[in-house]
Amino acid sequence: MAESLIAILDLETLDANLYRGQSPSTERQRVFGGQVAGQALVAAGRTVDPARRVHSLHAYFLRPGDPTWPIIYEVERVRDGRSFTTRRVVATQRGREIFLLSASFHREEAGLTHQLPMPAAPDPDQLAHDLRGNDDLSNAIARHSSIDLYRVEQSPDTDPASVNRQAWFRTQEALPDDPLVHVCAAAYASDLTLLTTALLPHHVDPAGLQLASLDHAMWFHRPFRADDWLLYDMRSPSATGGLGLTMGEMFTRAGELVVSVVQEGLMRPPRTDRA
Amino acid sequence: MAESLIAILDLETLDANLYRGQSPSTERQRVFGGQVAGQALVAAGRTVDPARRVHSLHAYFLRPGDPTWPIIYEVERVRDGRSFTTRRVVATQRGREIFLLSASFHREEAGLTHQLPMPAAPDPDQLAHDLRGNDDLSNAIARHSSIDLYRVEQSPDTDPASVNRQAWFRTQEALPDDPLVHVCAAAYASDLTLLTTALLPHHVDPAGLQLASLDHAMWFHRPFRADDWLLYDMRSPSATGGLGLTMGEMFTRAGELVVSVVQEGLMRPPRTDRA
Repeated sequence: MAESLIAILDLETLDANLYRGQSPSTERQRVFGGQVAGQALVAAGRTVDPARRVHSLHAYFLRPGDPTWPIIYEVERVRDGRSFTTRRVVATQRGREIFLLSASFHREEAGLTHQLPMPAAPDPDQLAHDLRGNDDLSNAIARHSSIDLYRVEQSPDTDPASVNRQAWFRTQEALPDDPLVHVCAAAYASDLTLLTTALLPHHVDPAGLQLASLDHAMWFHRPFRADDWLLYDMRSPSATGGLGLTMGEMFTRAGELVVSVVQEGLMRPPRTDRA
Repeated sequence: MAESLIAILDLETLDANLYRGQSPSTERQRVFGGQVAGQALVAAGRTVDPARRVHSLHAYFLRPGDPTWPIIYEVERVRDGRSFTTRRVVATQRGREIFLLSASFHREEAGLTHQLPMPAAPDPDQLAHDLRGNDDLSNAIARHSSIDLYRVEQSPDTDPASVNRQAWFRTQEALPDDPLVHVCAAAYASDLTLLTTALLPHHVDPAGLQLASLDHAMWFHRPFRADDWLLYDMRSPSATGGLGLTMGEMFTRAGELVVSVVQEGLMRPPRTDRA
């Protein structure tokens, strides 16, 4: 059963700069990485003038989170500058750091404008209609995550220069107008289906590998709503030594590039010579 | 006159986890961002088992550095795990934080391998021969930076989807075999010519804008030498609101993808309504 994303992102305030988040009831062994990233960004945003928009975040996943235990988010007010505000968030469970995030917020200003064009993609409503009821892994993940996510079928290409994955997603529930909620929802969703993009050139079964997000970086270019369809276009420039790098962009239906994402992950093959 | 990059990257140890770096004599008003990134990575690496290779870094530039004053680098030993080591470095001057870096190190392991192919590019020795003595801005920057850097002439395209910049670079001096020195030299060089790539679609003069690196992220995929030619292939997926996002890859002459780079920068047009 899907849990309310609004509820997941609504942290309890413990003190100045100190927040507590809960995990949804789940059969997962670990806290979903997108949840920690989204909650940490909520915590950072609570300490920043709402007139300043988050434009980037950089994060490391340190240890798997325990979904049966609350997560403490402590915000360090690194800098409050004339144009930029910088925050650092440390997420802990039982006194151990599980996640580090830094984020930067920026007052509105004008400037030069350009963007990558949106790649060709099928209509999201048609895709959702065609795939609804399809019980494959990606949609199972999506339902548990409060996100409707539909992967676009891809050609069986194995050339790393051209392999890519597309998905349309949106939150299952309507979100309030607060722009930070939409950004945190996108941070939540950005951890879905990204890392396994690095497996596409290899035609291997993800279930046969130890997969874990190692870091996560996002840049928020323009305002958007996460309760309307966003196209997530993903690829993997490199993999080696048990690590895979993945990149993605999110576009609105109108073709606006709103988010860029980069994540490196562990993709460890099964080994018999170690526990 | 170029200064020795080896000397710039050779920090003084003040205490456990505490280092001091110097800036080369320069006419710059601010410390070069690549210098702070390179020195911070040296500081992090000094606290890590050399058998673990740095595979990623994420950094924020907080304040301009003063090149007439030493920079203090304090390393926090965030985590020493079975496979990964995480470090955080805070760079300060006169007690104020100017730069934050997180970096992750990884023990050697095997895994799936793929990479983007190297794009077409001219031969670096021929390019260097043709451009040597050309006194344009890019080479002036390069000479001051202990880096030989030669930009490939680009077509006057303004389509953000296809505009890109290429440069070949290498350190002016031979470097010792320590792999971390080569990585730190690449971190140093990665801040050259990257941000202005975001101006290419607009045909504007960089001198007319306030330009500043805001963040910096790098992923080190494979071992390489920075005292041999590296191809730096750069582009800009987005610019808006005074911010520009840039991305790049570094390839060896043999075509190996060794580094990925992402940087967002401030590109502020001149304004008359504020100081």
